[in-house]
Amino acid sequence: MSLILAVNAGSSSLKISLYQRVRQEAKAPSLVLTSSISSILSPPAQFKFIHASTTTAVKHSNTAELPIHDHETAFDHFLDHLKTDTSIDSGEIKHICHRVVHGGDYTDPVSISEETYHHIEKLSDLAPLHNGPALSVIKASIKALPNARSIAFFDSAFHKDLPRHVSTYAIDQGIAKERGLRKYGFHGLSYAFIKRVVAQHLHKDRGALNIIAMHIGSGASVCAIRAGQSIDVSMGLTPLSGLPGATRAGDVDASLIFHYASQSPSLMSHNPSLSKEVHVTQAEDILNSQAGWKALTGTTDFGEITKKADLSAPSSFTQDNPCTLAFHILVDRILHYVGAYHLALRGRVDAIVFAGGVAEQSEELRRAIAEAVNHLGYAAIDERVNKTLDNREGIVINIGKYDGGKRMLVCRTDEQLEMARECSSAEEFWNA
Amino acid sequence: MSLILAVNAGSSSLKISLYQRVRQEAKAPSLVLTSSISSILSPPAQFKFIHASTTTAVKHSNTAELPIHDHETAFDHFLDHLKTDTSIDSGEIKHICHRVVHGGDYTDPVSISEETYHHIEKLSDLAPLHNGPALSVIKASIKALPNARSIAFFDSAFHKDLPRHVSTYAIDQGIAKERGLRKYGFHGLSYAFIKRVVAQHLHKDRGALNIIAMHIGSGASVCAIRAGQSIDVSMGLTPLSGLPGATRAGDVDASLIFHYASQSPSLMSHNPSLSKEVHVTQAEDILNSQAGWKALTGTTDFGEITKKADLSAPSSFTQDNPCTLAFHILVDRILHYVGAYHLALRGRVDAIVFAGGVAEQSEELRRAIAEAVNHLGYAAIDERVNKTLDNREGIVINIGKYDGGKRMLVCRTDEQLEMARECSSAEEFWNA
Repeated sequence: MSLILAVNAGSSSLKISLYQRVRQEAKAPSLVLTSSISSILSPPAQFKFIHASTTTAVKHSNTAELPIHDHETAFDHFLDHLKTDTSIDSGEIKHICHRVVHGGDYTDPVSISEETYHHIEKLSDLAPLHNGPALSVIKASIKALPNARSIAFFDSAFHKDLPRHVSTYAIDQGIAKERGLRKYGFHGLSYAFIKRVVAQHLHKDRGALNIIAMHIGSGASVCAIRAGQSIDVSMGLTPLSGLPGATRAGDVDASLIFHYASQSPSLMSHNPSLSKEVHVTQAEDILNSQAGWKALTGTTDFGEITKKADLSAPSSFTQDNPCTLAFHILVDRILHYVGAYHLALRGRVDAIVFAGGVAEQSEELRRAIAEAVNHLGYAAIDERVNKTLDNREGIVINIGKYDGGKRMLVCRTDEQLEMARECSSAEEFWNA
Repeated sequence: MSLILAVNAGSSSLKISLYQRVRQEAKAPSLVLTSSISSILSPPAQFKFIHASTTTAVKHSNTAELPIHDHETAFDHFLDHLKTDTSIDSGEIKHICHRVVHGGDYTDPVSISEETYHHIEKLSDLAPLHNGPALSVIKASIKALPNARSIAFFDSAFHKDLPRHVSTYAIDQGIAKERGLRKYGFHGLSYAFIKRVVAQHLHKDRGALNIIAMHIGSGASVCAIRAGQSIDVSMGLTPLSGLPGATRAGDVDASLIFHYASQSPSLMSHNPSLSKEVHVTQAEDILNSQAGWKALTGTTDFGEITKKADLSAPSSFTQDNPCTLAFHILVDRILHYVGAYHLALRGRVDAIVFAGGVAEQSEELRRAIAEAVNHLGYAAIDERVNKTLDNREGIVINIGKYDGGKRMLVCRTDEQLEMARECSSAEEFWNA
């Protein structure tokens, strides 16, 4: 057996999928099982373990007992469970694919060696908050499975061909080059998956696909794909910019953090000798972890927000309800990028694609977006499909009343599968 | 005689226009003379003085002699010149209108009293860089012309009715309210002027006007106006966000400044005890004064950039030439907002309006924008008009081949006239 483990470390979660590779069908590794561990940093952690053949989740009910307190112990717990609850020999795991958010100059997956690990560690300065969990799991996996090859897959790699006038900030280019300060963009594994399956769905060549794809989850972004390539994306130097997320501010005036972090609001001074300075870790914490719809409403659960929101009135009214406000803010910011990318693609768009937890689950969000873009030639929503999406099968689902114009699609994106697929297909990883 | 002085203080410039008010035609004060002083902070300052009747500029050639070294001395120099070179009695100046960038909660012009001056000074904490020059000139004018009434006109006031889901950042709303952290938007005097004259030009009621207006000068922004009201604008909490300007970065990832300002690029540490903190004045200086197309090309003169740029190749090529890159960056960012605002207006747009020094002067910029938006139903550019715009008269000029669709207009915007007009029309300012 040739097994591939695909590991997706979020800030407080760990998603793991185990695949089997069959050489003859290397492009379609088959899922053996999945596991997810959530609330790692806010114990008790939740652990799920699902065999692909049964689709029954093993869920630890007495979660207080779980010896999970960080990403390393979460990963170890998964391996323990694999050993005790299955007949799978972890020695058969040949490759471990790790999603790493920020790849810096890396534009292809890299095998982890001492050298490449340190390189990733160094470039992670641009995104310590985002790369940290993956680096922890990489360490843990090398320790636990020393004979498997660890491979880093970068979320920024999909955007490697951004036009230079799109990726360049209007700042000193000497400093920008020296420090790597440009737009990178993220969610690339998800966009690679979306591009592949949507092209299949539309029977189009991937190199001819023009779509506006959005990945809306706890982290959220929009991407313009022209002829199969990312030509713009809402995230930038780090995942902070662009859309708001569960705890992330998204686009703000770059001055905001100094006013936010000042200790004396009414008398904030610009005199360097009087005023408080702002440290990068404080800024990151506020803008990445203390903002977003959690800050607006108290919950990270967008489903709960939608339930509590009053969506009957136009967006310009009724915003004393913080959930209504949060809903309309997200829709407004998504539409901002959809409008911009529709123009960036000069209107030649095959489809708008909804992906990621929030967009795959919120019929209200999809409806609000669809109503707004209808005049640009996008199909109206088929409410029978939109409302019953959870019951429908398929990776790509057409939710629009297609009439030959631009489609509205939902894509059940799968970053782990994308890594496993790429790993499985790359013969160089298997010939050594 | 009832004279109105309209004063527009930029970071290193001062534009002054003197108007005469005739009660019967209060809505159309007539221009008596204009003056402009530039390079105030990078001496020798340049001084111009033009009588409306002659249109001949008096330009000091031996500029080294000018006793101008800040905004106060610049204003005093203007008054001296008014005294020696004209027969105008400065005692006839009844009102002095000052453009103040950031009005905070002020949504209407206010007469300057000790109380209002201090209020403006306090709210200027949000924009010390931007309000500072106006505050200096207000002081100087009260000293020099104690009998005239000084009135502050706020560039943020035009955007006072931004929908709440547009003006709200996805951050803690308790802190946001306490510290006034929201989108304000600026260039409001210019947009008020544009709205008024474009509605006249189109024979439309101002309250029915839908336009995408852009003010592209050293500072640059785009505004979506629906039914005569600003519903979105690219600038935010301060004029920093949105489009890049002559020395301003425009939208950047909010993390960027910490990486930019770090002293050890290769080893920037997130450890609070090791890493350098960033002060608001340093951040403001870098992002507002050391960025933009000056940082990209070495010049603030967009005309020079356009001349040196190679615009024959597609934007995705030839960007080793920094001027080509700077040109395409500005076009890309403008189109980003135009696309977004076209959608925000649901495609019901009467016209795209080009205004501000750069947009009024650059046929290349207008052409690039027009070509990109043509597919959305905007009129193609009439090159005969576009190329000879400098020779054409009129405040609003139609540069599109109008065919019943959406228009392409140029508007010679005039912030001083807008203030003087509003001041002249407001009977309460004249009855006291």
